[in-house]
Amino acid sequence: MGQPKQERAVQTRLALMRAAAEVFDEHGYAGAGINKILKRAGLTAGALYFHFGSKEGLAEAIMNAQQDAIEPLLESQGLQRLVDITLVWSHRLPADPLLRAGVELSLGHEAFADGTPFESWRELMAVYLREAHELGQLREGVDPEAAARFVVGACTGVQLYARQVDGRQSLPRRVEEMWDCLLPGIAAPGTAHEYDAGVARGERLARGQVAA
Amino acid sequence: MGQPKQERAVQTRLALMRAAAEVFDEHGYAGAGINKILKRAGLTAGALYFHFGSKEGLAEAIMNAQQDAIEPLLESQGLQRLVDITLVWSHRLPADPLLRAGVELSLGHEAFADGTPFESWRELMAVYLREAHELGQLREGVDPEAAARFVVGACTGVQLYARQVDGRQSLPRRVEEMWDCLLPGIAAPGTAHEYDAGVARGERLARGQVAA
Repeated sequence: MGQPKQERAVQTRLALMRAAAEVFDEHGYAGAGINKILKRAGLTAGALYFHFGSKEGLAEAIMNAQQDAIEPLLESQGLQRLVDITLVWSHRLPADPLLRAGVELSLGHEAFADGTPFESWRELMAVYLREAHELGQLREGVDPEAAARFVVGACTGVQLYARQVDGRQSLPRRVEEMWDCLLPGIAAPGTAHEYDAGVARGERLARGQVAA
Repeated sequence: MGQPKQERAVQTRLALMRAAAEVFDEHGYAGAGINKILKRAGLTAGALYFHFGSKEGLAEAIMNAQQDAIEPLLESQGLQRLVDITLVWSHRLPADPLLRAGVELSLGHEAFADGTPFESWRELMAVYLREAHELGQLREGVDPEAAARFVVGACTGVQLYARQVDGRQSLPRRVEEMWDCLLPGIAAPGTAHEYDAGVARGERLARGQVAA
């Protein structure tokens, strides 16, 4: 009466990712020994190498999983979608080891010298900034690719600031302030007030209450 | 024929700060053992405790010294001064262990849970944003304190991104992109083009060629 093989494989994969996310979050990527991760997951090295190939492969899977935790909650488009992604992220980060591990991975000196931790977020931001451009929502002259790079960098720094000052309790408010500074610069003139980056919207979205 | 006592004290202080900056930059704050710092400086623990009280005191002195390395180069005011600080910082960071140590200290999990590494930068940014407000340079509704917090966070994140992607070679260009996104949002309508955040200006200022 064992589980089907495929289901077991999915659960093993998930257990390794959850355990690694917690250990990355607690010890940083460099300090997260494979044995610590295996002990936390209650699994063998064979399982880790079978599913992910290496510690780096495991870290990449965690980074990719971040967006899967956020995107299904959202139905908005263009610039509001961009804002919404950061709102949900800012509300869920304090309680979600997976999102926190993603942040921790972006701080590592050693691993991912190619910028991997930033690239998948940048690509996601660029998708919605290009959509915003097509919808006529962007100020003339705003380059969606440059703006995507900046938003990813800014979110990273804003959460570091909030972490140091108050353990990230103020992060949703800091993200609202970020958009207060940023929206009048990237939205078409006179339209910044049409977007909602408020803490209340972020709370609703993070609880799974979809808003267009 | 020894040096005057006071001059020797100044040199000892500087030697400790330079050695600590290098070691923080290479090993992070947590990994920077006091013995490593003393060995690099060629000095004793007594000197460190006499001048700084603790490793944390030494780190604080390094953070405060960052601004002393930048401010004397600048004569601009208001919003252009704010921009200029970030330009010089972005040009000098790749080659200046002191500035890099300041950045490294802001990433530490353990030390400075009170946000110290960010606070002195935030205060400096706020001085010039308030000046910009008094000069009528800010868009109506922009809060100088909130904007100062955001600029410090954004700079931190932008340099992390540049560090991961290309070892900070692109940092001056990323800072220019930051201001492209940000100036139209915080400057009075129609005035963003009056400010120069270009890589060429940053190079000039970082070489000590003063520009108003």
